[in-house]
Amino acid sequence: MSTSPAERDAMRRALALAATPGVPLGPNPRVGCVLLDDEGRTVAEGHHRGAGTAHAEADALRLAGEHARGTTAVVTLEPCNHTGRTGPCAGALLAAGVRRVVFAQADPNPVAAGGATTLREAGVEVEQGLLADDAAALNRAWTFAVTHGRPLVTWKLATTIDGRSAAADGTSRWVSSAAARLDTHRLRAMADTMLVGTGTVAVDDPLLTVRDADGVPAPRAQQPLRVVMGERELPAQARVLNDDAETLHLRTRDPRAALTELQQRERRHVFLEGGPTLAAAFLRAGLVDEIVAYVAPVLLGSGLAGVGDLGIGTIAAALRPRVTDVTVLAPLDPTDPHDQPNVRLTLAPGGDH
Amino acid sequence: MSTSPAERDAMRRALALAATPGVPLGPNPRVGCVLLDDEGRTVAEGHHRGAGTAHAEADALRLAGEHARGTTAVVTLEPCNHTGRTGPCAGALLAAGVRRVVFAQADPNPVAAGGATTLREAGVEVEQGLLADDAAALNRAWTFAVTHGRPLVTWKLATTIDGRSAAADGTSRWVSSAAARLDTHRLRAMADTMLVGTGTVAVDDPLLTVRDADGVPAPRAQQPLRVVMGERELPAQARVLNDDAETLHLRTRDPRAALTELQQRERRHVFLEGGPTLAAAFLRAGLVDEIVAYVAPVLLGSGLAGVGDLGIGTIAAALRPRVTDVTVLAPLDPTDPHDQPNVRLTLAPGGDH
Repeated sequence: MSTSPAERDAMRRALALAATPGVPLGPNPRVGCVLLDDEGRTVAEGHHRGAGTAHAEADALRLAGEHARGTTAVVTLEPCNHTGRTGPCAGALLAAGVRRVVFAQADPNPVAAGGATTLREAGVEVEQGLLADDAAALNRAWTFAVTHGRPLVTWKLATTIDGRSAAADGTSRWVSSAAARLDTHRLRAMADTMLVGTGTVAVDDPLLTVRDADGVPAPRAQQPLRVVMGERELPAQARVLNDDAETLHLRTRDPRAALTELQQRERRHVFLEGGPTLAAAFLRAGLVDEIVAYVAPVLLGSGLAGVGDLGIGTIAAALRPRVTDVTVLAPLDPTDPHDQPNVRLTLAPGGDH
Repeated sequence: MSTSPAERDAMRRALALAATPGVPLGPNPRVGCVLLDDEGRTVAEGHHRGAGTAHAEADALRLAGEHARGTTAVVTLEPCNHTGRTGPCAGALLAAGVRRVVFAQADPNPVAAGGATTLREAGVEVEQGLLADDAAALNRAWTFAVTHGRPLVTWKLATTIDGRSAAADGTSRWVSSAAARLDTHRLRAMADTMLVGTGTVAVDDPLLTVRDADGVPAPRAQQPLRVVMGERELPAQARVLNDDAETLHLRTRDPRAALTELQQRERRHVFLEGGPTLAAAFLRAGLVDEIVAYVAPVLLGSGLAGVGDLGIGTIAAALRPRVTDVTVLAPLDPTDPHDQPNVRLTLAPGGDH
C-alpha cells in the first residue's frame, strides 16, 4: 500500500465524518469521504446520513461539483458497485473524473462489492486497507451481519456477586448501580434492536428504550426497535407498547428463526436483555457474539439466576468466553454510600468448553 | 504532635522492620522499634519475631546495651505495660534510660495499655500518633480482634459471572483462574486461620494449606490453623488432616460459638472458605467483616450457588457492602487462551440492607 501522509490524515477525518453523532442507526454502514486535490488539500467532505440518503462519496461529489475532477477520493469503505436506493458510487466517482481512490475497509457485502475492480478497470489508481481496522470497528455490527447473514447479538447480564438477577420475589430494581444502568443505555443506543422474551415483559414490564440519567427517552428516530419474542400475547397495557419507540412481537421461541426474521428486516445489532430462559436459549444455540456482564457488589442469597440451564453438568464443560475488557464503573454520586462501584466485563464467547 | 523528620524516617523504618517477612503469624501484633541518638542517628533496631520472643523494644534495647541511655525510642505500637510471656516494655525503656518515646498506634488492648502514661509519669517525653494509620493497617486483624473480642472474618467467594461456585455435579476445579487461586493463597497466608464446614471437607476434600504456584505448601510453621466446623465426623483420609498444617475440628454449627472458641485460642484472622451454607450462616449472623469475591468469566447455567439463603426476599433487602477495592488479575500465562483475566472485588459489609 502506498499512501501519503495527507491521505492518512484525510482518512482519519473521513472516519470522524462517518461517526458524526446524530446519524440514525440504520441498515447501512457509516461511511465518510474526503476529496483531496494534488497538493493534499481538502476539496470537499461528505458522509452518509442514513438509509435513503446519499452515500458518502455522492455527498462529497455533490459539494465539490466541477472541482471533483482530478481529485483523490479518500473513503472509509470500498465504493459500492451496485444500484440500491441510490446509484453505484464507483460509477459516480468515475463520472466525476476522480483520479485516485484510497479506501479503508473492503466491502464485505457480496452484492455491493466489486467497486475497486470497476474503478481499476476504468484506469483509476486504487489503494485499499488504510486504517482498515478502524473502519471495520466503526461498522462492527454491519460487517458482522453482512458476513454472517444475521445480526450481531450482544447479551447483557446484570448480576449480584452471588449471581442473582432478581430477588426471590422477582424484584430487580435495582441490582446494578445508576452508573451501570446509564452505561447500559449507552450500549442500547449503539444497537438497532432490543430483544426480550414475553416472559420478561410479563414479569418486569420494561420500557426497553434508550433513556438518559433522568429517565428521559431519546427521540423516537434514534430508538432501537423493541422486539419481544415468544408465543404468549403481550398485555395491552405493557409499557413496551408505548409510543417512545417501535415494537415488534415475533411469535417464535426459536432464536435462529428470530434472527433470520430480524436479518430480513435489515437489523444489524441485537441487544439481548432477556431473562434466564431466553439467554440460555441463545447461548445454547451459539448465537451470542458478545456478553456484557455487569457485576454489582450486592448479595441476595436466593432469587433468580442470571441465566438458565445451559446443559452443562460438570466444570470441564463450562463456557469460558474470552475477556475483551474489564471496566470499573465509578459511582455517579461518590458522596452516596449506597452508590457503589460496579464492574463491567465484556466477553467474546466461542472459547472452548 | 511534635516529631522530627529523623523520627518520621525512623518510624517508616520501624514499620518496615515490623513487617519483616518470615515472622510467623501469631497472636501478637507485629511491632518494630528504632533507637535514635540526639543527632537522629540510628543506635539500634529491633522487631518482634513471634509469640514467646522478645518484644520489639526489648530486641532493640538488647542490641544497644549501654548505648540505649538518652536515646529516643521510635516504636510502631504503644509500649506495653503488662507482664505477659515477656516483661513490660515501658519498664524496660525506663530501666535502659531512654529519654523520649515516639509511638504510632495506641495500644487498643485494655490489658496491655497504659504504657504511655507510665512513661510520662516517669518523666519520659512521649509523642503518639506518628503514622498511626500505617501501624494500625499493619496489625489490622490483631487490632480488630483486640477491640471486638473475636477474630476478623474474611469470607472468600469465587464465582462465575452467573454466580456459580461449582457445576451441577459438584465439580469446582477450577472456576477461578490460576492467578486468582495464587492470589487466594497469598491472602490465606495473611490469615492465621482457615475455616470451612464439614460439608466442604466431604464434598471438595480441600487441603486448606498455603501453597505456591507449583502447589508446594509453605512450611508448617507458616501455615494457618485449619479449622473445620460442624458436627459431622471428618473422614479419616480427609486431606485436611494431613501433616502440612495443624487442624482443629470444632464440633459446633454456630458461627458465634466457633469464633469465641477461636478467640480463646488467640486466633486473630479467620479466612472463611466454606460452602454456601456456612457462608450464609456467617453473613446472617453479621459475622463477616470483609468479603473477597473472585469473579471468573465463566458460565455454568446451573450448579451450586456461592452463598445460601440469606433470608432476603426482595431487592430492597439486599446486602449492599461497600467496595474497598477492585483489581483485575491478569492471566499468569498470557499466551494461553484458556487463561483469562479474573476480577477481585474486596468488600466491607455493614452497609444498609
